[in-house]
Amino acid sequence: MRLISEKKTLTIPKGINLDNGSRLAPVTLVYETLGELAPNHDNAVLICHALSGDSHVAGFLPDDPGDAHPGWWDLMVGPGKPIDTNKYFVICANVIGGCRGSTGPASINPATGRPWGLDFPVLTIRDMVRVQKMLVDHLGIPRLLAVIGGSLGGMQVLEWSLTYPEMMAGAMPLATTMRHSALAIAFNEIARQAIMADPAWNHGDYYAGPGPGTGLAVARMIGHVTYLSDTALRQKFGRRLQDKNDFSFNFDVDFQVESYLHHQGTKFVHRFDANSFLYITKAADYFDVCRRHGDDSRVKAFARARTRYMVVSFTSDWLYPTSEAREMVKAMKKNNIEVSFCEIKADCGHDAFLLPNPRLAELIRGFLDSLAGQ
Amino acid sequence: MRLISEKKTLTIPKGINLDNGSRLAPVTLVYETLGELAPNHDNAVLICHALSGDSHVAGFLPDDPGDAHPGWWDLMVGPGKPIDTNKYFVICANVIGGCRGSTGPASINPATGRPWGLDFPVLTIRDMVRVQKMLVDHLGIPRLLAVIGGSLGGMQVLEWSLTYPEMMAGAMPLATTMRHSALAIAFNEIARQAIMADPAWNHGDYYAGPGPGTGLAVARMIGHVTYLSDTALRQKFGRRLQDKNDFSFNFDVDFQVESYLHHQGTKFVHRFDANSFLYITKAADYFDVCRRHGDDSRVKAFARARTRYMVVSFTSDWLYPTSEAREMVKAMKKNNIEVSFCEIKADCGHDAFLLPNPRLAELIRGFLDSLAGQ
Repeated sequence: MRLISEKKTLTIPKGINLDNGSRLAPVTLVYETLGELAPNHDNAVLICHALSGDSHVAGFLPDDPGDAHPGWWDLMVGPGKPIDTNKYFVICANVIGGCRGSTGPASINPATGRPWGLDFPVLTIRDMVRVQKMLVDHLGIPRLLAVIGGSLGGMQVLEWSLTYPEMMAGAMPLATTMRHSALAIAFNEIARQAIMADPAWNHGDYYAGPGPGTGLAVARMIGHVTYLSDTALRQKFGRRLQDKNDFSFNFDVDFQVESYLHHQGTKFVHRFDANSFLYITKAADYFDVCRRHGDDSRVKAFARARTRYMVVSFTSDWLYPTSEAREMVKAMKKNNIEVSFCEIKADCGHDAFLLPNPRLAELIRGFLDSLAGQ
Repeated sequence: MRLISEKKTLTIPKGINLDNGSRLAPVTLVYETLGELAPNHDNAVLICHALSGDSHVAGFLPDDPGDAHPGWWDLMVGPGKPIDTNKYFVICANVIGGCRGSTGPASINPATGRPWGLDFPVLTIRDMVRVQKMLVDHLGIPRLLAVIGGSLGGMQVLEWSLTYPEMMAGAMPLATTMRHSALAIAFNEIARQAIMADPAWNHGDYYAGPGPGTGLAVARMIGHVTYLSDTALRQKFGRRLQDKNDFSFNFDVDFQVESYLHHQGTKFVHRFDANSFLYITKAADYFDVCRRHGDDSRVKAFARARTRYMVVSFTSDWLYPTSEAREMVKAMKKNNIEVSFCEIKADCGHDAFLLPNPRLAELIRGFLDSLAGQ
């Protein structure tokens, strides 16, 4: 039987005050819930999505065709799965700044009646999290059992745990970082430049036209390479040619890895808004728990934490390497916070948390069980 | 006293047959020589340049202003330097396909009287090397003392040693690979896509207009990140802000690493032709000594080699990692070729061979001395 999930909407007419000093109103949040909230409201698990994710975390939507893909973390979320919807009430909301229903640069600016475009305020991860907190309050949940997420989702998990330290029993940041390295910023900036170099981007004012598809495709290709590992690319493609006979001796596709990247780029253009890409990557670059919560000190940053952490990194993740996760765990431990850490051996790079992985499944299941048993 | 180098030109009216099956004619090669050819013509060192290099390897040109930069490897080449122009006759030629004087896509196509653009044939590293061989013959050199080069220059060194095995006493490939990994191809292809996404590229036909400057700048930024290491970027920039006070909360430059990349991108546009970038990166992606010389076998590939090799890799080079250099050295050894290998500890990434490095200087000097003493 198909797990049917439902897309819900919360509108916050008064909006929120943002970190950049401005006010964003109204704010709409699109979210999905799975499972049932327990009578004492203590079984809620909030899942935070990564850059290209959305609120549709698992199962199928009511009007999905028979061949539809399930939600983006269906591997991990559902009846009997590690995040077991028979036990837990699962919530996942599209981030603000995004383009999958929640308020973002493609939404209508009430002051002009036209899409915000670049007039949309630059957001932070904390802005995203503060709107999620309003949702959790709205749902009548006094304290979450856990907040879980990978990559940009993991940044939200960290921010949740430090901005609302009493609001959760456990926090599970996966494949993430306390702050972007210069390398991560560099790749994001190049991707943004690729979008802004596309004349169809038109300074963000393109919603009446075709939009910067070629720029966004290049941006996605850049991102996609950083999510994979050298090893994964070697295993998956090596130097295999698209046409087995020989090189084309022109500038079409020669190698399978090129064809794969083109496909990823083109596919992305159909489901993602270029301005949202700019806003979300900028929020990721700005994210810095040390700066915000610790006067640039890693240890001080976690002084306010009151949750149990389970930190997970992946061996082949070169975007957010294990060395950074270890530094974070060390900083947590210096504050006598209860933290478990696991580096999972995986060849597939940063995106490993989205792929089938028995070890990760076991860790998530075990962590939630231990929290629920407290 | 300034070392004055001279730009020379060789024109080959009959041209050459290319690997793609076509004929390129005429072919012009711009080159530089430094030092004096010994009476018995046995002291010539050929230097092969990398992607963005040119024939101007050291010293100054006669009409350089007082504040001009010297040639790209002036650190290594000159009187008393490791490649000592008091002892050796140094030759460096701009690759065909390039844009610094030798025949390339910006040259005039004799069939149309207009720049070649995309009608220029797609070249291989071997095509580049075969034209260099014509230059060496033209200079009356029966056998080179050594062929030396890094990155794309290192590919040329390898190709020289296998296409003309008797033509040199020693070969020194630096920071290079036997063939591009899927990751290296991926980055090159994304950079090419960034150029081709620029409408001003106009399918390569832009020489009458401003050209695809924004696309080329993005391409260069992608390349530049791959030449640096995570560590180098951390040391050089970390998360330091351009404006020390705070984030801009817009899409201008926030971080110093962003400003640096913009600068690199813009600077490159003034000195490089976008089509040459396409042609040279394609040649690099096609390069595969195993496929060409060994039926896809690394060991077989070096069966024809008759030179002494000195292979050098750099610890932080993630584009052409040491692991690949070791595989190459192993393949050479299985053929009982005399080979020395050195992995140099350097934090600065792939570009380390272009930066001051006493260990590299010592290795080059020692290798040339040992060859000259043979």
